[in-house]
Amino acid sequence: MDAASESSEAAHGARRPGRPYDHSGDPAILAVTLDLLAERGYDQVTLDLVALRTGRAKTTLYRRWPTKADLVVAAVEAVGTPPEARELPDTGTVRSDLLAVVDSPWLGGPDRRMVLFDGLVTAAQVSPRVADAVRTTVTTPYVGVYEALLDRALARGQVSPGRAEAVPLVAQVIPAMASRGLAEGPVGRSYFVDVVDLVVLPALGIVG
Amino acid sequence: MDAASESSEAAHGARRPGRPYDHSGDPAILAVTLDLLAERGYDQVTLDLVALRTGRAKTTLYRRWPTKADLVVAAVEAVGTPPEARELPDTGTVRSDLLAVVDSPWLGGPDRRMVLFDGLVTAAQVSPRVADAVRTTVTTPYVGVYEALLDRALARGQVSPGRAEAVPLVAQVIPAMASRGLAEGPVGRSYFVDVVDLVVLPALGIVG
Repeated sequence: MDAASESSEAAHGARRPGRPYDHSGDPAILAVTLDLLAERGYDQVTLDLVALRTGRAKTTLYRRWPTKADLVVAAVEAVGTPPEARELPDTGTVRSDLLAVVDSPWLGGPDRRMVLFDGLVTAAQVSPRVADAVRTTVTTPYVGVYEALLDRALARGQVSPGRAEAVPLVAQVIPAMASRGLAEGPVGRSYFVDVVDLVVLPALGIVG
Repeated sequence: MDAASESSEAAHGARRPGRPYDHSGDPAILAVTLDLLAERGYDQVTLDLVALRTGRAKTTLYRRWPTKADLVVAAVEAVGTPPEARELPDTGTVRSDLLAVVDSPWLGGPDRRMVLFDGLVTAAQVSPRVADAVRTTVTTPYVGVYEALLDRALARGQVSPGRAEAVPLVAQVIPAMASRGLAEGPVGRSYFVDVVDLVVLPALGIVG
């Protein structure tokens, strides 16, 4: 972000209509929006607070993202897809492949990512447009990663006979249990390890 | 509800302080609140709309439930616990016991109940107090019902050797997948049948 042009813009108030919008500060604004979602949940995120944290003028934010939903949708879309969707882990066992996704360093590693996704789940419930963005950007790609890992296990003969038809549904179990709302606050890594060991692998009869 | 006293109260405006509140209309108001949650989700439920649908004066509603969260928490608490929590189904097989819970006529049967619970999940995400009420009233009792059914199967020797430790986690799978947010709109009965047949029973090695 260009701090000089930021403060000059703040000092001069609204930009003249027609002057092209400078997008160079967008990534920082969207990152702050995600941080706030993770810290406080959708309800407590305001454009005022984002303006305060980024040092941008409120008018600048409102011109670019007229509503909170617009801003949050842009932030979700900026998250991108999990790196495992582009390159499947292949670590030797189905179990360690699944755990490589759970332990991915993406978005700051498992703990920060789980808190962030908890914020996204909150946001998705309030705004149907945010829900679409979360489904498209996060949930569907994750189900896809798990399904690809389990399909590969099937192709390698690691799934028990007669369990092939369960693969698409079992691929949804980890994302589903991540947002189950049973615990107070977000679930931790050890919960996912248990889901892999006690539900996913046994449901498909996968050993190791 | 007493229609005569309702219209008289609406005509006279606010009740004098100190006059005892008449609770006889509460169940109808809470039922309408649940209907609206199911139809529109938390965001679209307003005390104005509840007043309109029930024919009660807005001032009466505000006096009893000062905020929307108060009203929705009361509505969730009025749902009560699933009847299966008081009397476990015992139909002959673990599968048909689990499906008896899925197919329960409680709260209007599976289709209406799934739409309603979808509305509760929405509400829970917005208000931590509503989230607590949903967890206490709905989610935890349901996990308890499934856990009791699976514990009984374990006691009857129907769970595969070595799978006992998975029972508490597997008991969370059905409630978790009910609110997974992967589908557009609420999931239907056939989805739960698949979750039972392709995830829950195989994860515990239960046959029938």
